[in-house]
Amino acid sequence: MIIIGEKLNSTNKAARAAIESCDAAFVHDMAKNQLAAGASYIDLNAGMFVEDEPEKLEWLVKTAQEAVDAPFSLDSPNSEALKRALKIVKTKPIINSITLEKERFDSILPLVLEYGTGVIALCMDDSGMPETTEERVAIADKLIAGLTAKGVNISDIYIDPMVRPVGTGSHYGTVALETIRSVRSRFPEVHITCGLSNISFGLPARKVLNQAFLIAAMTCGLDSAILDPLDKRLMAYIYAAEALLGRDDFCMDYLAKYREGLIDLP
Amino acid sequence: MIIIGEKLNSTNKAARAAIESCDAAFVHDMAKNQLAAGASYIDLNAGMFVEDEPEKLEWLVKTAQEAVDAPFSLDSPNSEALKRALKIVKTKPIINSITLEKERFDSILPLVLEYGTGVIALCMDDSGMPETTEERVAIADKLIAGLTAKGVNISDIYIDPMVRPVGTGSHYGTVALETIRSVRSRFPEVHITCGLSNISFGLPARKVLNQAFLIAAMTCGLDSAILDPLDKRLMAYIYAAEALLGRDDFCMDYLAKYREGLIDLP
Repeated sequence: MIIIGEKLNSTNKAARAAIESCDAAFVHDMAKNQLAAGASYIDLNAGMFVEDEPEKLEWLVKTAQEAVDAPFSLDSPNSEALKRALKIVKTKPIINSITLEKERFDSILPLVLEYGTGVIALCMDDSGMPETTEERVAIADKLIAGLTAKGVNISDIYIDPMVRPVGTGSHYGTVALETIRSVRSRFPEVHITCGLSNISFGLPARKVLNQAFLIAAMTCGLDSAILDPLDKRLMAYIYAAEALLGRDDFCMDYLAKYREGLIDLP
Repeated sequence: MIIIGEKLNSTNKAARAAIESCDAAFVHDMAKNQLAAGASYIDLNAGMFVEDEPEKLEWLVKTAQEAVDAPFSLDSPNSEALKRALKIVKTKPIINSITLEKERFDSILPLVLEYGTGVIALCMDDSGMPETTEERVAIADKLIAGLTAKGVNISDIYIDPMVRPVGTGSHYGTVALETIRSVRSRFPEVHITCGLSNISFGLPARKVLNQAFLIAAMTCGLDSAILDPLDKRLMAYIYAAEALLGRDDFCMDYLAKYREGLIDLP
């Protein structure tokens, strides 16, 4: 499971304050802690600063890089901000994200190609966020075809089905799950990721829904997620799901995590 | 979700002692508590008493019936024990279970037909427990065809894929899940159930694995399970999964359970 740690995001209050005040210690600790908790990538987002986004994202990359060797998920639709970040980043990052919107596709793709990055591709086009499974799958197909035709390796693409809150439509859970299943069945090599917490927006006990949805999505073929790796129970369910889904030979990783006290939580 | 409460089973130490000593109060309480916790059926099993099984199962039915109106899952391969139970049972039960083993099929089927019961049908035949998904699916197909040909309504059949412990084979989780998905895709009206806890046999932190597996199996089409309804966290995940899988309009049941304090557990 490829875990993208979500905690250094300017929509998060504490992270925003740290970025605003150039609190390097906060960024160092949060990057290190997420990595230690199992993140493969550290998401960096300075989008809330609008005008200053390029400068702030560059500072985030530079600062996080002082603390960890981990690769980053450069979370911005702004090509200027991405360029500043890409110029100084040391380890192959993911760009988060491209869409099928023409302007965004045309401005992000050259950066993916020039810097040889991975890329999260959202199932969204110029007509907005699609309603049905079929529309999402059609956009995913076009994204995969369009990116690979330009030379992006399929294993560098992370399809994001765009999860909508189940509280605003009872069918949104199955729409996301069926999209994942359809993409996975036809493209075994592509990565499939999602921003996990959208599913529970507006409902109480969000962690329970997020945990259950993550297991359901992994069952359908999700192999990556943008989430809080510091949520220990969520991580325990990831280890359990990997064992149950045949992705953990002899349950070796599950047993190791159990011995580290990471499964059997109070 | 059709929940079959597993706690009145003679393989369970406390239940066995209660059955042995004819402790009616224990049976009353355990039947009532499981029902209150969300069980649709109460499983009754006296199989550990071998010689006395018919008498003990009859006593269990008579005693549980004093406390609850709920239907029972009569858990025995012994047609004599089942007959004694069926003669006195007041509410349409499930027989747990039939298989494709010739002797068992021929001895259980007449009881299903005579008493118009539901029936759990295990994916197993005279060659033993099948190894692959394909073998399980083939047996499920034969069970459904054989039972419906004899007049059993498809909605009275509960296919059980026979879950084997993932600790004894890393592929057993996916074998069970793929069997569930295949049966569900071709038979939307059949019920699919399983004995949940087998999946985690021999591994530590079994509850975490059981919870994760239940969500995975529901995602693939499971609509029933034999489990401990007194496990509050397990039940919370069932409510969450129902909301996520589009089986809970407007998340009304999830919200009601939340207000009852049944979702957000410490």
